[in-house]
Amino acid sequence: MFITFEGPEGSGKTTVANIIVTKLEKLGFKVVHTREPGGTPIAEAIRNVILDKKNTNLDPRAEALLYAASRRQHLIEKVWPALKEGKIVVCDRFLDSSLAYQGGARELGVDNILSVNMFATEGTFPDLTLLFDIAPEDGLKRIAANANREVNRLDLEKIDFHKKVRESFLELANKYQERFVVIDANKPLEEVVENTWLEIEKKLGL
Amino acid sequence: MFITFEGPEGSGKTTVANIIVTKLEKLGFKVVHTREPGGTPIAEAIRNVILDKKNTNLDPRAEALLYAASRRQHLIEKVWPALKEGKIVVCDRFLDSSLAYQGGARELGVDNILSVNMFATEGTFPDLTLLFDIAPEDGLKRIAANANREVNRLDLEKIDFHKKVRESFLELANKYQERFVVIDANKPLEEVVENTWLEIEKKLGL
Repeated sequence: MFITFEGPEGSGKTTVANIIVTKLEKLGFKVVHTREPGGTPIAEAIRNVILDKKNTNLDPRAEALLYAASRRQHLIEKVWPALKEGKIVVCDRFLDSSLAYQGGARELGVDNILSVNMFATEGTFPDLTLLFDIAPEDGLKRIAANANREVNRLDLEKIDFHKKVRESFLELANKYQERFVVIDANKPLEEVVENTWLEIEKKLGL
Repeated sequence: MFITFEGPEGSGKTTVANIIVTKLEKLGFKVVHTREPGGTPIAEAIRNVILDKKNTNLDPRAEALLYAASRRQHLIEKVWPALKEGKIVVCDRFLDSSLAYQGGARELGVDNILSVNMFATEGTFPDLTLLFDIAPEDGLKRIAANANREVNRLDLEKIDFHKKVRESFLELANKYQERFVVIDANKPLEEVVENTWLEIEKKLGL
């Protein structure tokens, strides 16, 4: 079972994922909780090229190809082996982040980014994708309020960019209804966790 | 004018390219002689991930995506600006090497690799591609005889691999006849240079 958590920074998805993973483990499930590059050395090396502040002139298409390469290596070394062993893989961001950020917001085209990623993933899609939806203004407010969390480059992109990301995510949720569930991330944490858990229960047939 | 030199290691293409570039410059042409990653820092950083001996478990699809990313950045920073200034760009290996090595010999599919590279190049093809064709056995003999040139990882691949590379290159030459010229690289250097120069003259209308 391959479950991905998607949404903008400040949507609380990582906090919710941590709680959900703990609940699953308490119930006896074997869970791998990961995010790209997931500690796989090659994927880390690739990610370092993307995030290196010296590389400000990294072209958006080159960036998209690097994300796809990192994704491939993470799948090969971590996700596919865990799925093969029957574990639940919970992944913080995956394919849909590339589609929404590079394809939608950076305007490289969702179909173009999908095509590059299909080469990388050989058609692996998540069984369940939880989209933590929140208005960009509210998400950014949360980030600013959270002193334990550094504001990163993406946070600082203009609000219009974040609006496009949100629209793209919602379009993806509409396109891939069979695997997407939209969670209202503006509600209090306990309620978000409860709604998320209901979807996980449903998917796992608990 | 965008001219690429393709062929296996030991085909002499780099030696020939050096001579041709010197001839062109003597005639007053502005020439940029390059090869990926071409000294562009981001493309170099990407290439380091590919060539790092620690990364022996680099997956072939991830490798292909990294080559495409490096190609993109090299195009953006070096090839396209030079072409825009009306220079002749001579590039040692380009797209067709990925098609022959990853697509053909590594069996990832020429069409798959083409698709990923079309995303990277946005449809930029060379105006002229010179394929230095030589039987793998003869090419490897030349490499071994050349004490100034270290034998690298690709050289050591089995001879079958090199045969597949050659077949793929020849198939590409057949598919893209409008830009490909096959040069018999088994002839003496002076003859190879002469035949190459004839093709360049024809293309430039000299």
